[in-house]
Amino acid sequence: GHTRVDHHRSLRTGLPEVVYAAGKTPAQTAEIFASLAASGVAVLATRATPEAYAAIAQAVPAAEYHALARCVTLPGSAVAGETGGTIAVLCAGTSDLPVAEEAAVTAEIFGAKVIRLYDVGVAGLHRLLAVKDQLAAADVVIVCAGMEGALPSVVGGLVGVPVIAVPTSVGYGASFGGAAALLGMLNSCSPNISVVNIDNGFGAAYTSTLIARAARNVHQK
Amino acid sequence: GHTRVDHHRSLRTGLPEVVYAAGKTPAQTAEIFASLAASGVAVLATRATPEAYAAIAQAVPAAEYHALARCVTLPGSAVAGETGGTIAVLCAGTSDLPVAEEAAVTAEIFGAKVIRLYDVGVAGLHRLLAVKDQLAAADVVIVCAGMEGALPSVVGGLVGVPVIAVPTSVGYGASFGGAAALLGMLNSCSPNISVVNIDNGFGAAYTSTLIARAARNVHQK
Amino acid sequence: GHTRVDHHRSLRTGLPEVVYAAGKTPAQTAEIFASLAASGVAVLATRATPEAYAAIAQAVPAAEYHALARCVTLPGSAVAGETGGTIAVLCAGTSDLPVAEEAAVTAEIFGAKVIRLYDVGVAGLHRLLAVKDQLAAADVVIVCAGMEGALPSVVGGLVGVPVIAVPTSVGYGASFGGAAALLGMLNSCSPNISVVNIDNGFGAAYTSTLIARAARNVHQK
Amino acid sequence: GHTRVDHHRSLRTGLPEVVYAAGKTPAQTAEIFASLAASGVAVLATRATPEAYAAIAQAVPAAEYHALARCVTLPGSAVAGETGGTIAVLCAGTSDLPVAEEAAVTAEIFGAKVIRLYDVGVAGLHRLLAVKDQLAAADVVIVCAGMEGALPSVVGGLVGVPVIAVPTSVGYGASFGGAAALLGMLNSCSPNISVVNIDNGFGAAYTSTLIARAARNVHQK
Amino acid sequence: GHTRVDHHRSLRTGLPEVVYAAGKTPAQTAEIFASLAASGVAVLATRATPEAYAAIAQAVPAAEYHALARCVTLPGSAVAGETGGTIAVLCAGTSDLPVAEEAAVTAEIFGAKVIRLYDVGVAGLHRLLAVKDQLAAADVVIVCAGMEGALPSVVGGLVGVPVIAVPTSVGYGASFGGAAALLGMLNSCSPNISVVNIDNGFGAAYTSTLIARAARNVHQK
Amino acid sequence: GHTRVDHHRSLRTGLPEVVYAAGKTPAQTAEIFASLAASGVAVLATRATPEAYAAIAQAVPAAEYHALARCVTLPGSAVAGETGGTIAVLCAGTSDLPVAEEAAVTAEIFGAKVIRLYDVGVAGLHRLLAVKDQLAAADVVIVCAGMEGALPSVVGGLVGVPVIAVPTSVGYGASFGGAAALLGMLNSCSPNISVVNIDNGFGAAYTSTLIARAARNVHQK
Amino acid sequence: GHTRVDHHRSLRTGLPEVVYAAGKTPAQTAEIFASLAASGVAVLATRATPEAYAAIAQAVPAAEYHALARCVTLPGSAVAGETGGTIAVLCAGTSDLPVAEEAAVTAEIFGAKVIRLYDVGVAGLHRLLAVKDQLAAADVVIVCAGMEGALPSVVGGLVGVPVIAVPTSVGYGASFGGAAALLGMLNSCSPNISVVNIDNGFGAAYTSTLIARAARNVHQK
Amino acid sequence: GHTRVDHHRSLRTGLPEVVYAAGKTPAQTAEIFASLAASGVAVLATRATPEAYAAIAQAVPAAEYHALARCVTLPGSAVAGETGGTIAVLCAGTSDLPVAEEAAVTAEIFGAKVIRLYDVGVAGLHRLLAVKDQLAAADVVIVCAGMEGALPSVVGGLVGVPVIAVPTSVGYGASFGGAAALLGMLNSCSPNISVVNIDNGFGAAYTSTLIARAARNVHQK
Ligand SMILES: Nc1ncnc2c1ncn2[C@@H]1O[C@H](COP(=O)(O)O)[C@@H](O)[C@H]1O
Ligand SMILES: Nc1ncnc2c1ncn2[C@@H]1O[C@H](COP(=O)(O)O)[C@@H](O)[C@H]1O
Ligand SMILES: Nc1ncnc2c1ncn2[C@@H]1O[C@H](COP(=O)(O)O)[C@@H](O)[C@H]1O
Ligand SMILES: Nc1ncnc2c1ncn2[C@@H]1O[C@H](COP(=O)(O)O)[C@@H](O)[C@H]1O
Ligand SMILES: [Mg+2]
Ligand SMILES: [Mg+2]
Ligand SMILES: [Mg+2]
Ligand SMILES: [Mg+2]
Ligand SMILES: [Mg+2]
Ligand SMILES: [Mg+2]
Ligand SMILES: [Mg+2]
Ligand SMILES: [Mg+2]
Repeated sequence: GHTRVDHHRSLRTGLPEVVYAAGKTPAQTAEIFASLAASGVAVLATRATPEAYAAIAQAVPAAEYHALARCVTLPGSAVAGETGGTIAVLCAGTSDLPVAEEAAVTAEIFGAKVIRLYDVGVAGLHRLLAVKDQLAAADVVIVCAGMEGALPSVVGGLVGVPVIAVPTSVGYGASFGGAAALLGMLNSCSPNISVVNIDNGFGAAYTSTLIARAARNVHQK
Repeated sequence: GHTRVDHHRSLRTGLPEVVYAAGKTPAQTAEIFASLAASGVAVLATRATPEAYAAIAQAVPAAEYHALARCVTLPGSAVAGETGGTIAVLCAGTSDLPVAEEAAVTAEIFGAKVIRLYDVGVAGLHRLLAVKDQLAAADVVIVCAGMEGALPSVVGGLVGVPVIAVPTSVGYGASFGGAAALLGMLNSCSPNISVVNIDNGFGAAYTSTLIARAARNVHQK
Repeated sequence: GHTRVDHHRSLRTGLPEVVYAAGKTPAQTAEIFASLAASGVAVLATRATPEAYAAIAQAVPAAEYHALARCVTLPGSAVAGETGGTIAVLCAGTSDLPVAEEAAVTAEIFGAKVIRLYDVGVAGLHRLLAVKDQLAAADVVIVCAGMEGALPSVVGGLVGVPVIAVPTSVGYGASFGGAAALLGMLNSCSPNISVVNIDNGFGAAYTSTLIARAARNVHQK
Repeated sequence: GHTRVDHHRSLRTGLPEVVYAAGKTPAQTAEIFASLAASGVAVLATRATPEAYAAIAQAVPAAEYHALARCVTLPGSAVAGETGGTIAVLCAGTSDLPVAEEAAVTAEIFGAKVIRLYDVGVAGLHRLLAVKDQLAAADVVIVCAGMEGALPSVVGGLVGVPVIAVPTSVGYGASFGGAAALLGMLNSCSPNISVVNIDNGFGAAYTSTLIARAARNVHQK
Repeated sequence: GHTRVDHHRSLRTGLPEVVYAAGKTPAQTAEIFASLAASGVAVLATRATPEAYAAIAQAVPAAEYHALARCVTLPGSAVAGETGGTIAVLCAGTSDLPVAEEAAVTAEIFGAKVIRLYDVGVAGLHRLLAVKDQLAAADVVIVCAGMEGALPSVVGGLVGVPVIAVPTSVGYGASFGGAAALLGMLNSCSPNISVVNIDNGFGAAYTSTLIARAARNVHQK
Repeated sequence: GHTRVDHHRSLRTGLPEVVYAAGKTPAQTAEIFASLAASGVAVLATRATPEAYAAIAQAVPAAEYHALARCVTLPGSAVAGETGGTIAVLCAGTSDLPVAEEAAVTAEIFGAKVIRLYDVGVAGLHRLLAVKDQLAAADVVIVCAGMEGALPSVVGGLVGVPVIAVPTSVGYGASFGGAAALLGMLNSCSPNISVVNIDNGFGAAYTSTLIARAARNVHQK
Repeated sequence: GHTRVDHHRSLRTGLPEVVYAAGKTPAQTAEIFASLAASGVAVLATRATPEAYAAIAQAVPAAEYHALARCVTLPGSAVAGETGGTIAVLCAGTSDLPVAEEAAVTAEIFGAKVIRLYDVGVAGLHRLLAVKDQLAAADVVIVCAGMEGALPSVVGGLVGVPVIAVPTSVGYGASFGGAAALLGMLNSCSPNISVVNIDNGFGAAYTSTLIARAARNVHQK
Repeated sequence: GHTRVDHHRSLRTGLPEVVYAAGKTPAQTAEIFASLAASGVAVLATRATPEAYAAIAQAVPAAEYHALARCVTLPGSAVAGETGGTIAVLCAGTSDLPVAEEAAVTAEIFGAKVIRLYDVGVAGLHRLLAVKDQLAAADVVIVCAGMEGALPSVVGGLVGVPVIAVPTSVGYGASFGGAAALLGMLNSCSPNISVVNIDNGFGAAYTSTLIARAARNVHQK
């Protein structure tokens, strides 16, 4: 119908067009997923419900569902392994896991090595300090946090690489759907932080992959 | 004229009525200050400009000016020394100093012992960890921070006493005059934190003094 | 799985880690509750649905459900009775009861004596004035109110102890989910007030318990 | 020039068109004031600076300046004395006085009897309770308050007549220029309260005068 | 249980305590309604669902349901007929009817004469101008409008009596749940307007009844 | 220096690039104005202070200043007279005049015939109804209003042509710098209304000129 | 019942009163639709659910449903073909289609020629540049976009005719229900843009039809 | 005094601690600048007024002032030339220049190669398309834009590298101090975009330098 696929970006970046399943019917999602799969590239669908996955799986049996991340991927496709670089994905609390996993799964399908460091919120600082060495191995760090969104500032001070901060909608009352965390991150006093939209694990992973791909070369030398 | 002095609270708490000099002329401020001084109790004026102090000093030569805190106090008056208890006052950056000093000067005039721990923002965590022992001596902790307002959450996780968080209006752009810090503090995942108005160092010290006064007895035993 | 339990805070404060059941499945909640119960400390789960309680009760039959407070507690565990101090819990209207009860149940499981003074909103002042004597016995006062959130200011003027104000999401239209009450409380002209997040009865009780524990010593002398 | 004077309203209500001096030059204000004075009716200019008054006084020597209220009136003109009814004007703190006086001066020039009850904020409740009898004499009550804006709710519960609430821009930080007080008043749980714009003492007096005029007849019988 | 009934206000105003059924179970609502009915005064429940009415009707068979207004009343009770005075209730569009009817039903049970003038929004001005004569008979005017909330300003210019403006949550997009209408009404350039909370037809009628009761005497002479 | 002039739009529309003087020094403004004047087209500078005009006048003596509109124009240049069509410019109060004049002067320099209908706010409806015939002659109507921003809705219902609504920053308190008027206009129930930015008289005139130019042909037949 | 049909506007504009089905029952919608159909003019219902259409179809079998646009139209009625002029309707992404189709269907029933140019968002600019020629044929352009709402600015720079921008509620997190897109469009640096309410495809089409009707004459010469 | 210098970050990143001069007196700024200069590393002060520069120049004569960028740098110091990589800095309009220059000067002192592409806003798209080749040479792109903030989305679609978006406070009315641009950028449909605080050119350059440093190695091979 009316969809105009944007092949330009894929050509420039080597990263595929991704299906955003929110607001699409399972049938629509499956149809687009299948047509992309047919072209042999790596395929990713985000914000996919179990129903959307069921529809995809019927069309593309090799597709895998990442329930926590709400993502569908097609393993064995082209990009995997080519990007390189290492991305650490952190989250503050267990409620931030769906967003962190959306980031992690996206980064992996795009070919990055991912280090998951979860439930390391700042109110129990020893948890973060305990993983400091693992943090040091990353070329770029994604930090997901809801409520007060303080984790990126602390992490930003511990590492010498770019930090992509993802505010999550976790919280209640004066969290205003993630706005409190978003504002906190935008005002961070760590200067190596930039921010994406609330709950946008995908976008954080996309831009992190571009960074890690370049950084990989540094480490490989 | 129209001012009705509230002696009830002073009687109940043993803490004096305080002059809020903002929006008053130097002459008005001096007049109220002098009349309180005449009654022999401890006197405090907050948000006092140098001009306000000049007017006060003419009427009450013993009055002292705390320029950074924008406070005027009358030393040697009744409350000092009676309250007891120890209050740690922290701030994240050097721009938060006026608010932190308003808190510290208020707490001292009200008779608490004050430990100042300044410029210990979370983006350089080693600075905070270096003062951990001093923190442990406090019966209550006041934490002033602008921008992302993350410091109270981290401090809250390090101590076993109440933390009073004071958002400051330090910042620009999406700090929205301190609203970002305020929201961050309200959403803190440390459960021992409560929050006062933006830049309200006075209120933080007032309520902290009430807490410290009780807590002193614990330490004295 | 990914959960990192924070034993540090428990050690420092003598207060247990608490299960926040919102956004967890009944099975997840029950599993965490049971593992904490096994360690013999006092256990508390907040924001627990009847379904969550059912799952907990199967694993830990001694667990009790506080329906109005949406809390599950394990009586007979370690903390109860040790904290001491007296906390008055007030609320403005009957719709604020769930938040007030979350505070009251939390404070009790943490070992404080609780005085409940409900439905004492400022539009019918005689109701508050009628309980003034009971208020005077408290070491700290928790005040829950939605809509205009005026009650803490009035209470703050009647007592000489710290007041923890809890805005509730009760209201409609321009209450904006509790934001009106929150702003009112932050701007209170009573200087002994500090504020927690909208509907955060738990946090108010946690910090009040720390205050009451110290204050108890004053009264015991 | 372009100004179209609205005589219709004056005819309907018996109340004169009023000059809103904010955003007008002293010369413009004086010109309009003088032309209204020439017609022999009561004249009022609000938000008038001392400079504006100076210009008016040159054109209309009988004009009087109410410095605190920032109003200019022309005594001896037609309306005074005709309206009748009694309006109580309350304010919470001394900083609210300019708004309260704008209301009081407006009501008086429109012919109402005004009872001023100032500095009766809710944080020191005894001050309000001390004037309860005076309140009872009013046909309508105007309540001006900034910061948390709690006073109208308390007053609303004490009287059996309409209360017009005027939020003021007094405060700082999270008062957001009077928005906190405004929201508090709109969410009042006293059902006899309606609200006007922030700092709009004039509007409160205008609508109160219409109410008092009718109510006068009740008392006169 | 915990409910403290406020008889003071009823005594002062002659208007009964009203049951606000939102957030109460049908059983709770019915219990309170029945106990008030037993005392022989006029009874009103607002925001009552059909289920709440069913429960009330079983306890108090004489109770009547006003479906559009979502109100339950007990006819034949004491207040009706005593208040007097005339209230015009206007609304801008058909979607504002539930709020307008809440106001109208409330005013009638409180004893005022009500003139309903509906669907007279300003985008088709002839509809309002056609009812100008009916408007002129009112002692006070209630105007309900959503979307841009312009109707009160126009009506305020047409009448010489107080106008109570009720913003409604009717609209979508940038109406932000009635906030656009609320702000419009607060900024009205008609000085005889005061405003109540979004969708608060009840409060508008309550305060209007107090005004109309006094005004009645004017007309009766 | 760095400025890239956009000649494309001028070529497409026949309307010149316009100098936005806000945030430019008088010298910078004059330099750009002079260079555009040299090319012989109609020239317009908006938001020009008297100082900016003085600088322009020295470089381009024929330039004229429109003080109320804060605009500088160069008469006798190319566009004037070519556009045709008639634009009515309305404003609600005298304080809206600067915005209305920015619109009127812009439309005239772009070649449209302008009908000015000022101070016709809805609180005194007879003023608007008195100019209804003049309104009927317009091909498009620009309506400037601050405070509640109700005028466009009423005008939209009176005419059968497009209405461009311009919220102004006139007002105080809850007008929030024009946001109240903006929201009102976006929610108008008249379907022939579209809205530009707060105080953007220039943009309203630009888009209205494009509409009027086409409409002219209708009337000329 | 209470509905007052506004025939004035229809007479002035030749465009029919339209049924806004949101918040009406299917039965109510069908009744109004049928009564308008009986008068022989073109009929349009917007925001109509399938259930509403089913009810309409029973009363008016010739009615057609536009599922994506959520509109019901009655073909063969009077207006079609008379308006003339060409309207291009653009949208940024496939999720904006319902709003774009509401605009397109409305414009067609009102007699304009519509060019649909969908899925031409600015992140893949070649898609927009590819349809530049088709854009050039339009007398007015409607641009629907959610998320960042950037498309109108780019389109505004490519065409010499008025652009009506329609923010959509498409997005999540910091899109705040379309507010981000709305603000972007209001701040556009293209001066030929005006804006309607979020998701208001109908209003955009209504005002565009009025513009296109006039513009048609230009092209016909 | 109280300042605790954070040497940790410098050691980790090889980038110096930077002086944020806003809110510091010229004397304070000069003192810190001089002490950093003494240590032989590259030194940068941002938000420096001419007065601050004058004070610095007296202490450190080699310091240079970048007036448009409001920055002071010390050339010939250690970092320059070591970082490598290429950063393109774009801005939409001439009013965005101060922010763009803060970014450019920061990136240069940190050792990156900077390509300046200014005044390429989306309303005149040809200007951006004309510099497409220069864009292609960048390892990372900084895009500064106020008003609607649309430029990053368009640029993000043209390049295959990370884009750091900087909203600026340029605009008026509904730009709300840069909030409109900020929201637009956070909602960008280009997935390679992350965002920093309003006007934070410094932070954008800091994080871009970290990215470019890694990317350089790719290009050097
Ligand atoms: N810096 C401050 N911030 C907020 N409240 C204050 C401050 N200083 C004093 N106050 C309060 O203001 C009251 C005195 O106000 P006033 O009567 O206007 O001088 C005191 O009782 C304090 O509770
Ligand atoms: N302080 C005030 N606040 C709000 N409105 C006012 C005030 N003073 C006067 N007005 C209104 O402004 C109108 C006069 O405005 P103007 O024609 O601009 O002088 C009067 O009819 C009053 O309704
Ligand atoms: N008052 C105004 N409000 C908004 N935009 C304007 C205004 N005056 C001029 N402009 C626009 O600003 C552009 C020129 O901006 P600049 O290059 O910064 O002078 C012109 O092309 C106009 O589209
Ligand atoms: N323009 C700026 N915007 C935001 N942060 C800055 C800026 N300039 C410097 N900084 C940060 O401010 C810190 C220094 O702050 P201070 O100790 O107050 O001088 C540096 O480490 C930078 O991270
Ligand atoms: Mg945890
Ligand atoms: Mg520092
Ligand atoms: Mg009650
Ligand atoms: Mg006082
Ligand atoms: Mg209608
Ligand atoms: Mg006027
Ligand atoms: Mg697409
Ligand atoms: Mg330009």
